[in-house]
Amino acid sequence: MTPYEPKKFALPALEGISPKSVEEHIALYEGYVKNFNVITATVADLLKDSEKNAHALSELTRRRSFEFDGMRLHELYFSQFENGVMPMGSGSPLSLALDAQYGGPERAITQIKAVAMMRGPGWSILYFDPQNKQFQIGFAGEQHQGHFVTLPIILALDVWEHAYLLDYGALGKAKYVDAFFANLNWSVIENRFSGTQRG
Amino acid sequence: MTPYEPKKFALPALEGISPKSVEEHIALYEGYVKNFNVITATVADLLKDSEKNAHALSELTRRRSFEFDGMRLHELYFSQFENGVMPMGSGSPLSLALDAQYGGPERAITQIKAVAMMRGPGWSILYFDPQNKQFQIGFAGEQHQGHFVTLPIILALDVWEHAYLLDYGALGKAKYVDAFFANLNWSVIENRFSGTQRG
Amino acid sequence: MTPYEPKKFALPALEGISPKSVEEHIALYEGYVKNFNVITATVADLLKDSEKNAHALSELTRRRSFEFDGMRLHELYFSQFENGVMPMGSGSPLSLALDAQYGGPERAITQIKAVAMMRGPGWSILYFDPQNKQFQIGFAGEQHQGHFVTLPIILALDVWEHAYLLDYGALGKAKYVDAFFANLNWSVIENRFSGTQRG
Amino acid sequence: MTPYEPKKFALPALEGISPKSVEEHIALYEGYVKNFNVITATVADLLKDSEKNAHALSELTRRRSFEFDGMRLHELYFSQFENGVMPMGSGSPLSLALDAQYGGPERAITQIKAVAMMRGPGWSILYFDPQNKQFQIGFAGEQHQGHFVTLPIILALDVWEHAYLLDYGALGKAKYVDAFFANLNWSVIENRFSGTQRG
Repeated sequence: MTPYEPKKFALPALEGISPKSVEEHIALYEGYVKNFNVITATVADLLKDSEKNAHALSELTRRRSFEFDGMRLHELYFSQFENGVMPMGSGSPLSLALDAQYGGPERAITQIKAVAMMRGPGWSILYFDPQNKQFQIGFAGEQHQGHFVTLPIILALDVWEHAYLLDYGALGKAKYVDAFFANLNWSVIENRFSGTQRG
Repeated sequence: MTPYEPKKFALPALEGISPKSVEEHIALYEGYVKNFNVITATVADLLKDSEKNAHALSELTRRRSFEFDGMRLHELYFSQFENGVMPMGSGSPLSLALDAQYGGPERAITQIKAVAMMRGPGWSILYFDPQNKQFQIGFAGEQHQGHFVTLPIILALDVWEHAYLLDYGALGKAKYVDAFFANLNWSVIENRFSGTQRG
Repeated sequence: MTPYEPKKFALPALEGISPKSVEEHIALYEGYVKNFNVITATVADLLKDSEKNAHALSELTRRRSFEFDGMRLHELYFSQFENGVMPMGSGSPLSLALDAQYGGPERAITQIKAVAMMRGPGWSILYFDPQNKQFQIGFAGEQHQGHFVTLPIILALDVWEHAYLLDYGALGKAKYVDAFFANLNWSVIENRFSGTQRG
Repeated sequence: MTPYEPKKFALPALEGISPKSVEEHIALYEGYVKNFNVITATVADLLKDSEKNAHALSELTRRRSFEFDGMRLHELYFSQFENGVMPMGSGSPLSLALDAQYGGPERAITQIKAVAMMRGPGWSILYFDPQNKQFQIGFAGEQHQGHFVTLPIILALDVWEHAYLLDYGALGKAKYVDAFFANLNWSVIENRFSGTQRG
């Protein structure tokens, strides 16, 4: 397999999320890319004697999604900040669809924030199901537990401790969640939604 | 939210998977649809007093993906049998892509089978990542643990005990896995892959 | 490490749980013992070059509890049937303690049965916490997820599909749960509780 | 049920683990106690109409171990620092047993440290199995995943991000693990082991 390459993000200064926190967070992201590539290469190597290595192959295979999802989710996360704050367009297709399902974007955001406050490391995620044209708001544990399978992601909010501990302390998740929403470039998020409306 | 409706599948008689086993399997699938709708409605109801119901809301939210994924994966599973056996087209885009990455479709299938033999209830899954144009073979625990997030699914093989126990006994998973592959309509699977090549 | 040896159980004929079902269940149990020993030996082997094998060591280490718990829980399960049905002693220490906490053993059993009906493969378990002298009723997913750490187990009820599918079908868990309770030798279970009252 | 009470720990100043980090860590511990009590009370309340509340009861039941294990593991963790550093007694029963199984306590510690470096939030744990008189070293994910069921814990090392992020940054786990071992009162740990040798 072709290894994955870590992406670079055009990040502005963020309000309420410090440069040091972002720097360490990016380093963690790059760790996911690196470890996914290493485990994938290890699996390929062990496959040369798949019978002898059956148990190791199984457990490395089981773990690949932890690294892959850590990679992919952080790419969705950081790109939401690229090029600076931009509000959701009133009357944009995303805004209209959130309005139709939740009675207004603000009410969807309130639910995403509530899910972000769930206990344990993970992600609060807004998915969209193209099959029945509805959003789903979910909590994914760590990187890889409990995703809505196959659904595209519209918005991804990291609530591992590394996302907020430096800036707000171990009990400061709520403040970080507010800071996250204050920094979003909604045009990126609107583009993701538009991408689900084609084909 | 609009409730999901259980789908009907045009299933032929299967070789090595008994009508009774299929009948119970379909009933389990319908249970996922029903339970997803019930939990989703319960969440909507509890949101009316979200502070008082915070813990119940959290844990029902955490569980929704178990039911959703059980629904969606079984839809991918049963539709692979619809309209009867059809071999993979030699020279089809799927066949060529598997050849390029694995050195032949048969070698990909061998790996999918090996992953299916991993211990524990779950699914052996062939995903495709449109971003870097590569397949990923993964094992998802139960319905919802360890998926490759956002990736479309090309092939989904159920290896819960209910899939094989009636026909082959608790130790008969390998025989069931062979039966699964003997019954596939590969044109369905090829169409899924083609769907990832657009846009 | 000294490998674990599979235990033999003095099982009577069970009411409503067929000999074939028991036979396959015992074979699955022996698989846990065997696989725990194999993974443990593999870990020991890979430790000889722990740097090169770091990822495989991690994931095999992560998985050992799945096999260990499968072994230990099945030993607790089968021994509950040994030597045939025996009712709970009215006025036994276990009976009195369940009475004090739940308002009667029957009400504890009702809760254990309700937990057994939770969706997904796992175990409904009655633990006892010697520190605060209270029982805890819990659901452990698969073999190893969500145990009450360090607590001794008083009663263990297997609700994987292999426990009931042959005898009652994929939708027959409730009937199996009733059969389980009809076959218990409560003196075994009372002895476990008495063991927690010493020291 | 009688609610659990948060414990107080006689903690000395720690080398390499700052007072602020300890203070926040204790607050997190108290959160586990509080949330376990709240969920337990909620379950008791919902049981009054167990049919109507079946789904919420299931998912709150499923989650109770997360809070319980967070409570119990942190009690094992902090008590290891109480009353200040004390080396392992050479020739103590624990030392001799580690020597017999691992070829010296230092080699056991090396393995515990390696397990602590596994990716993801959780615990590196030294268990002891009184049945076959052997230690098991395991990694428990978050608070509740993958424990060796029923086994007493001899040593518990927290490797969630909150344990090290303030003092060492998101990439500083190894330094924290060294600091952890530099602060241990081994007499506490030896007493746990001695407790498993009775009865």
